[in-house]
Amino acid sequence: METGAKPVRESVEFARIVAFTDGVFAIAITLLVLSLDVPSNLSGSALHDFLLDEWPQLFAYFLSFAVIGRFWIGHHRFFSRVDSFDRRLLVLNLTYLSLVVLIPFPTELLGEYGGSSDAVALYALVVGTAAVLAWVMLRYALRRGHARPQAQAVAGLVLGGPLIPALVFYASIPVAFASPLLAQLMWIALIVDVFRRG
Amino acid sequence: METGAKPVRESVEFARIVAFTDGVFAIAITLLVLSLDVPSNLSGSALHDFLLDEWPQLFAYFLSFAVIGRFWIGHHRFFSRVDSFDRRLLVLNLTYLSLVVLIPFPTELLGEYGGSSDAVALYALVVGTAAVLAWVMLRYALRRGHARPQAQAVAGLVLGGPLIPALVFYASIPVAFASPLLAQLMWIALIVDVFRRG
Amino acid sequence: METGAKPVRESVEFARIVAFTDGVFAIAITLLVLSLDVPSNLSGSALHDFLLDEWPQLFAYFLSFAVIGRFWIGHHRFFSRVDSFDRRLLVLNLTYLSLVVLIPFPTELLGEYGGSSDAVALYALVVGTAAVLAWVMLRYALRRGHARPQAQAVAGLVLGGPLIPALVFYASIPVAFASPLLAQLMWIALIVDVFRRG
Amino acid sequence: METGAKPVRESVEFARIVAFTDGVFAIAITLLVLSLDVPSNLSGSALHDFLLDEWPQLFAYFLSFAVIGRFWIGHHRFFSRVDSFDRRLLVLNLTYLSLVVLIPFPTELLGEYGGSSDAVALYALVVGTAAVLAWVMLRYALRRGHARPQAQAVAGLVLGGPLIPALVFYASIPVAFASPLLAQLMWIALIVDVFRRG
Repeated sequence: METGAKPVRESVEFARIVAFTDGVFAIAITLLVLSLDVPSNLSGSALHDFLLDEWPQLFAYFLSFAVIGRFWIGHHRFFSRVDSFDRRLLVLNLTYLSLVVLIPFPTELLGEYGGSSDAVALYALVVGTAAVLAWVMLRYALRRGHARPQAQAVAGLVLGGPLIPALVFYASIPVAFASPLLAQLMWIALIVDVFRRG
Repeated sequence: METGAKPVRESVEFARIVAFTDGVFAIAITLLVLSLDVPSNLSGSALHDFLLDEWPQLFAYFLSFAVIGRFWIGHHRFFSRVDSFDRRLLVLNLTYLSLVVLIPFPTELLGEYGGSSDAVALYALVVGTAAVLAWVMLRYALRRGHARPQAQAVAGLVLGGPLIPALVFYASIPVAFASPLLAQLMWIALIVDVFRRG
Repeated sequence: METGAKPVRESVEFARIVAFTDGVFAIAITLLVLSLDVPSNLSGSALHDFLLDEWPQLFAYFLSFAVIGRFWIGHHRFFSRVDSFDRRLLVLNLTYLSLVVLIPFPTELLGEYGGSSDAVALYALVVGTAAVLAWVMLRYALRRGHARPQAQAVAGLVLGGPLIPALVFYASIPVAFASPLLAQLMWIALIVDVFRRG
Repeated sequence: METGAKPVRESVEFARIVAFTDGVFAIAITLLVLSLDVPSNLSGSALHDFLLDEWPQLFAYFLSFAVIGRFWIGHHRFFSRVDSFDRRLLVLNLTYLSLVVLIPFPTELLGEYGGSSDAVALYALVVGTAAVLAWVMLRYALRRGHARPQAQAVAGLVLGGPLIPALVFYASIPVAFASPLLAQLMWIALIVDVFRRG
């Protein structure tokens, strides 16, 4: 691909890639609320019971809000170091987004069937794979020189960034089949740590 | 956190935070329409009755449109005074958004069960907490010097901004258990007052 | 309201109002597809019949896509003439958007119950009212000097812009109770004319 | 239409058309996840079976993500060569988007009824027609001089761009009635080829 085909930082094309990506993140994170269904025609006491039983759904909602929010912060930080784009990076970005956009589906499963090993394992698989794709995209951008020189200096540090979440989520898959609760505690520990360290 | 990590007003990073936030507001406000369900296979007269009974849902829709719209105006005004960003402000902003995005859920509950103390109290809890988080974010930005000098001058005034809605919504929670209708009248009075005063 | 509070054309604040509004239009127009439901567990011939019976839903979808698309073009043209903003214009803009965002609801009703006078009348009421609010907003902006001088020259022409659609949609309400089909033909004639004339 | 009415590349109006279009693409691609429904109240083994039977829905999800993603890349590349806009190009763009936004509907059909000739043929019809409209829009922009001079040089090459997908998807319609599987293999071959060649 010729150089002229690389949208550089200042161009409208670069801005469109950023805007599209941010739009997808914003929509995916907002669609999470649709996993909270409201049943019709409940009596007063049935409504009361429904709301008391809604905690697993609310937990899944806030968990995925934190997960997608953290992916967005990571992507935001990654893009702030990117200076140019080629076709393959665009395709990698779309592939990564296809996993992020999928998150509301295992979220709804998790809210409905949080005690199920299958639901917990699927959630871990989707989020872990999204983290792996973030890492692949980051590596590609650094290798092909799409990232800024000063960013190259911290490459070693940054490179490992999405790898730890990927490993934790993947490691939680076999754990989920022994104890779904323990797998979810692993995620919470990871997320608290990630947000605390920035 | 080093200074270089703070996205300043002119940077692409600052613009992305703004764009993401606006996107989330725009989607949350638009998803409100999904709380208006259309039943299938109604006869002519059943459809007529259904539409006549749809007023509580429409009331909840317009109420939440006003609430989210007002939160957006407040956020818009707040960001117009912000000059830089750090990681914690970003996390506070995401936490605040997680409550705003949740609003369609209690909205649907309110439309379906407007006479229920539980539904009214939950609505007040979600909106009140979103207002509290707006106030926490505002305070943090002013204290850490992320806001412009001229804005600091009006800080006292602004600071109280989201506090009054927070107090009214929280105060309406116990009221909801005595009279769900009165709690909703408190909200309407607040919203009319807020929009009238700007 | 002091002059400093008016976001002018070049500011980030003006850009945010535009971006939020465009986001709301983009989401409302895209949510129209959710009115097309897919039933589960149909046999081969039942699926065939379902698809053959789907034309009213597709008609409603494309009709509302044209309606919201046309509102967006009008808004786009209006904003290209606006130079500044005040609080009341912001509130008018939000009120207008609350009607535009509502359109997917009568669209789904129309797709499901296109032969019903109630459904047709409600659709006409929502779209007609959105057009009236567009006109109110336009008038306000011209009167308060938020529009550019050269735009003032064509004000007479522009002013009538959303009035004709408003009148046609309102006039179709009584027609809907005599003949739902005729009311819908009035809308089609209007839309064809509007898109042909620009 | 006078020259002054053409939004040129640098104007706010041009940016709004781009932003609206990107927003619509971002929402349409994200709504695909809503085609993945989560049933309530399944037992552990029923949930296991449900997830094992979910592959057709996931296939449809990733297929349409690739299709809409590729349309977006094509549109992105097309707009990077466009310098000005007139009303008809705006209407063509909206018409094209009305087909792109429709894609979640045949996607859900395909996921639910992938073995059905009707579902496969409808999917091919919608995607093929979107490709035809992309080609019509491209041709119009080149003929009316809305594209940049250097872009005119590669016009012959570019012009055929969306035509091949259009032909493959249309050709798969009769194939779908003989073998729904073969029709879907044609699409996969096309998409792999398109992404490989850029």
